[in-house]
Amino acid sequence: MRVGILTGGGDCPGLNAVIRAIVRRGVPEYGYEFLGFRDGWRGPLEAITRPLDIPAVRGLLPRGGTILGSSRTNPFAIENGVGRIKKNLQDLGVNALVAIGGEDTLGVASELHDAGVRVVGVPKTIDNDLSGTDYTFGFDTAVNIAVEAIDRLHTTAESHHRTLIVEVMGRHAGWIALHAGMAGGANAILIPEVRFDIDQVCEWVQSRFRLEYAPIVVVSEGAMPKDGEEVLLTGEKDAFGHVRLGGVGEWLGREIEARTGKEARTTVLGHVQRGGTPTARDRWLATRFGLHAIDAVAAGQWGQMTALRGADIVTVPLHEATQQLKLVDPALYAEAAVFFG
Amino acid sequence: MRVGILTGGGDCPGLNAVIRAIVRRGVPEYGYEFLGFRDGWRGPLEAITRPLDIPAVRGLLPRGGTILGSSRTNPFAIENGVGRIKKNLQDLGVNALVAIGGEDTLGVASELHDAGVRVVGVPKTIDNDLSGTDYTFGFDTAVNIAVEAIDRLHTTAESHHRTLIVEVMGRHAGWIALHAGMAGGANAILIPEVRFDIDQVCEWVQSRFRLEYAPIVVVSEGAMPKDGEEVLLTGEKDAFGHVRLGGVGEWLGREIEARTGKEARTTVLGHVQRGGTPTARDRWLATRFGLHAIDAVAAGQWGQMTALRGADIVTVPLHEATQQLKLVDPALYAEAAVFFG
Amino acid sequence: MRVGILTGGGDCPGLNAVIRAIVRRGVPEYGYEFLGFRDGWRGPLEAITRPLDIPAVRGLLPRGGTILGSSRTNPFAIENGVGRIKKNLQDLGVNALVAIGGEDTLGVASELHDAGVRVVGVPKTIDNDLSGTDYTFGFDTAVNIAVEAIDRLHTTAESHHRTLIVEVMGRHAGWIALHAGMAGGANAILIPEVRFDIDQVCEWVQSRFRLEYAPIVVVSEGAMPKDGEEVLLTGEKDAFGHVRLGGVGEWLGREIEARTGKEARTTVLGHVQRGGTPTARDRWLATRFGLHAIDAVAAGQWGQMTALRGADIVTVPLHEATQQLKLVDPALYAEAAVFFG
Amino acid sequence: MRVGILTGGGDCPGLNAVIRAIVRRGVPEYGYEFLGFRDGWRGPLEAITRPLDIPAVRGLLPRGGTILGSSRTNPFAIENGVGRIKKNLQDLGVNALVAIGGEDTLGVASELHDAGVRVVGVPKTIDNDLSGTDYTFGFDTAVNIAVEAIDRLHTTAESHHRTLIVEVMGRHAGWIALHAGMAGGANAILIPEVRFDIDQVCEWVQSRFRLEYAPIVVVSEGAMPKDGEEVLLTGEKDAFGHVRLGGVGEWLGREIEARTGKEARTTVLGHVQRGGTPTARDRWLATRFGLHAIDAVAAGQWGQMTALRGADIVTVPLHEATQQLKLVDPALYAEAAVFFG
Repeated sequence: MRVGILTGGGDCPGLNAVIRAIVRRGVPEYGYEFLGFRDGWRGPLEAITRPLDIPAVRGLLPRGGTILGSSRTNPFAIENGVGRIKKNLQDLGVNALVAIGGEDTLGVASELHDAGVRVVGVPKTIDNDLSGTDYTFGFDTAVNIAVEAIDRLHTTAESHHRTLIVEVMGRHAGWIALHAGMAGGANAILIPEVRFDIDQVCEWVQSRFRLEYAPIVVVSEGAMPKDGEEVLLTGEKDAFGHVRLGGVGEWLGREIEARTGKEARTTVLGHVQRGGTPTARDRWLATRFGLHAIDAVAAGQWGQMTALRGADIVTVPLHEATQQLKLVDPALYAEAAVFFG
Repeated sequence: MRVGILTGGGDCPGLNAVIRAIVRRGVPEYGYEFLGFRDGWRGPLEAITRPLDIPAVRGLLPRGGTILGSSRTNPFAIENGVGRIKKNLQDLGVNALVAIGGEDTLGVASELHDAGVRVVGVPKTIDNDLSGTDYTFGFDTAVNIAVEAIDRLHTTAESHHRTLIVEVMGRHAGWIALHAGMAGGANAILIPEVRFDIDQVCEWVQSRFRLEYAPIVVVSEGAMPKDGEEVLLTGEKDAFGHVRLGGVGEWLGREIEARTGKEARTTVLGHVQRGGTPTARDRWLATRFGLHAIDAVAAGQWGQMTALRGADIVTVPLHEATQQLKLVDPALYAEAAVFFG
Repeated sequence: MRVGILTGGGDCPGLNAVIRAIVRRGVPEYGYEFLGFRDGWRGPLEAITRPLDIPAVRGLLPRGGTILGSSRTNPFAIENGVGRIKKNLQDLGVNALVAIGGEDTLGVASELHDAGVRVVGVPKTIDNDLSGTDYTFGFDTAVNIAVEAIDRLHTTAESHHRTLIVEVMGRHAGWIALHAGMAGGANAILIPEVRFDIDQVCEWVQSRFRLEYAPIVVVSEGAMPKDGEEVLLTGEKDAFGHVRLGGVGEWLGREIEARTGKEARTTVLGHVQRGGTPTARDRWLATRFGLHAIDAVAAGQWGQMTALRGADIVTVPLHEATQQLKLVDPALYAEAAVFFG
Repeated sequence: MRVGILTGGGDCPGLNAVIRAIVRRGVPEYGYEFLGFRDGWRGPLEAITRPLDIPAVRGLLPRGGTILGSSRTNPFAIENGVGRIKKNLQDLGVNALVAIGGEDTLGVASELHDAGVRVVGVPKTIDNDLSGTDYTFGFDTAVNIAVEAIDRLHTTAESHHRTLIVEVMGRHAGWIALHAGMAGGANAILIPEVRFDIDQVCEWVQSRFRLEYAPIVVVSEGAMPKDGEEVLLTGEKDAFGHVRLGGVGEWLGREIEARTGKEARTTVLGHVQRGGTPTARDRWLATRFGLHAIDAVAAGQWGQMTALRGADIVTVPLHEATQQLKLVDPALYAEAAVFFG
């Protein structure tokens, strides 16, 4: 059997570890051949491939990113996309696909499965907002990077009288902000799931200043003030002609300065959060996802994806996992709020 | 209500984070007072205390170790130990205890509970071998430290022709070796649960040398060769008059050198694995254990301990958790073996 | 003799290590007493002090920031500032001062020396732009933090087709950008000493894209395009009523996107660069500066500051060190340019 | 012109960065071709080569180890070694050599230069014991790794009552122990240059225990007790028939336990110290050494090596640099001793 592998969506530490595990197990255990597809769904759509055998995956375990490249190409948005994929798979002699990706990539995988393509999924998102699995790889790495930055800011917080704001990833779900803020000892954590009240934030900030220790605010890029997102519009257009949404971190800095009369400084961690070598845990999870994905292929579990349940790897239907985002539970947010102010 | 807190057993990153979370929630939410007991069970046994209020726990989140100190004192091995503890608790006005520790400390807690002391437990072991919880804090930190060391050794492995052996913690269970070896890309992982065959190990080593890349062997301190532990006896007595058991890592180095004719080098990570600041995940877990432990006190869940199930914190009976060690499952070890040789 | 110590200017990893070394040597070797002044020159100006003895400096070596606090107070800008300082020193029985700081703090120290105050300086700036010393502590830490971020961005650069821009500290001198860019493998490094040509930058970026590997641009916050700083003005006013200068990193991102038609992403490292524990080298340098500073006090070398020359610590006159900034030499910048494009 | 490059001796972070810099500058600036020789002097001796051009050095900057491999082969210990090297260089059309290595490798280079081979050297040793240069690359990385380990041990030292011993590299010179011990806050540092008195060490240890904080002892692998090395002989023979010298770290542990009655634990960092990615400073130094080495080739500075003087790169005669080891100065050791006990 010949199995195709592709990686879609934003890059994420652990993608290469999944690819390596699939190949390292699939070749000797099942006698499979492997073919890498380039740049997500663009690969099978345009039949762009690269060979994948055991020598090709040597050294991949600790390497961030993906040797297969990635894209956000959606074959369902392209004329006869599904037909072209089916034809290419047939022409290349590829009998099954492992698709590694987030909501979008796995959503396509789920639909392709419905259209008769033999596909198994592996969930991936540093945002940790995929349903059906306790955690996704890449998330632990992103949180550790954010916590390391917050730890460093505490030093400045001890020596100066400034509000320090850290904007972390998380457009729809606040998992990174929640974990990093709780592990980093933040005085306020603002997440997309709960619209924040700028007056309340300033109260927390002021209460911290009274302890003679500067406040640290961790905010998801997708967090919004109560008054709505229109306050974040800058009016500028970017290179692609879209009206820019000013970063919520910068906006917070300006508002907190204006309301408290004390300086504020914003750090936007950006892509640093998704780069570099995966943590031990993310390598472990990615490796096990890879091993179980190829077992799922061997077992003919089409339309399923690997998932973490406690310390076990299980499989769940793709459509269940991609139906709705996993958001932060209010009870969990209330735990973090014990440390606000 | 006045609540006592103690930490027992070996030190472990995250202990301080538990203490901080208990106090930060217990004071404002429940109006409790807190008293720290020094050096594990020695504290309540000899009434050695230190005050614990909100200012006392400031800055504790990222700090490894335990501000309360620790010991392996067992009150059941001491004449009228239980009676003395009960009297001291009464004299100090302490109505409930939170005991943070491993198998021994929680075993004592469980027996004290049977003897009528109001106690809640928090599980702690870097070895991750406690039943009843998916993971314990400290484990993730230990694994990451070991993986960082293995990553560094890969550099030497690429440039020289030597077997590199890394001895990690784990006297009874191989969790650290298994996770670190799998995340570090080891060519052999030896754990206490499975007696190893030195000939098999040398075969893996030789097979790796044929790839022109030096082999890395990760071994738990408690792993044993098939021939039995007697081969590890050095004959020397240590300062306390016990016959020394030579480290299995050193023994492996000598045997592999003798059998392969190629140099071997052993690194014993030792206490470095349990020091330093906790990882983001361990801080998160320790903090949540602390929050849920004080909620368990408030709910009168005596004889219970906090536990991780998936992404949730639950409580389980102490006696269930301390009945038997959680060992590495053979199926899990077989997953790791995909990468041996 | 009673010796006062103060720290001025921005916080910097290693300040605490200097304080510790001064006290650890000064007490047993010379029998001195020490008094800490709070918040830079505000301390002696307003007689705000905190006691400093050997127990007070325990644990300070690895701690970033400064336990004495800091400020940018300038006694020469305050009515009778010098007179008040002299009187306070006399009233407090302080016979000598050690001033740890950058250009401003040491400039004040130099003038106070001319005015008859017995003062010894210790140079400090993460920007490394102080004359008279090969390096200052804090710089090595800042560069390592920036390089770690750049290393992470390389992962994304391998997987996506985007220009990645990293803005680092350095308002007047490009030392951090130069070292971090060179150690991080940047494709362009822009520093304040050399006005950059945006067309040339885009050429480097394009040449990198042709290698199928995304370009990384490291830019000092103080770097300026050839056309002058007016292009960076945003028109907005900040909370203090000043017209904001848009960050050069953000500006570069917009310009490069517009000119190359490919996405660009900017990371502004900000205060993360000056926080956290110092590197080994910064601890070593800070500790030795402290030891030699108190020796200079004992030797009566007033008006001098400690300095690094090769592997040796020497003393140089304060006024020499503060006369002009140490800028990046064009020959050194040319070395870095070998790797541009 | 065709230039050969080789790396000799133990591996060291930064070797690859030197190779990259030589090629990145040598090709476009001077129009040179490059040829890599494998495994130190074995390469030119046996004409084992690998091609080296700009694509071949891509990605090398952050990678530890050496893509050229290394060995301790000495052509002067081999029949007609020099003649064979000369002939091979001629046959391969190699007009000049850059030899990157430590005392042994550069000693050979110096003698080959005397024998008429056109060679330029680049100094390399993580031990930092080469004369003629302020520092060598690899040293900063080794020291940082050791300090990170010591930092972690402090956590245990705060919680338990044990002596913690860290054995670091340094067979003949104590530079790593000195820097790491001083930056890590060790209570005793033992180096090869000064025979230690075990009674004095135990005194420092006991004095630390009186502060209720466990002592940390940093010891070079080459440090010796006053009574001589015979106390370290274990009587065992290793796989190659040599009588083993027991590690000084283990010996210290046993002696301190026996004399103080308190447990001691030894960590031997071993090869972890020379692995992994170089620090920012080592990358900077290695890169600049590479750039200046190829400039030295272009200038015909045969028999010279690159060296660091302050913040400048200079060249010095190879024979000067390899005449005698650079040992720790007693005055410098006295600075460290301020913190003993």
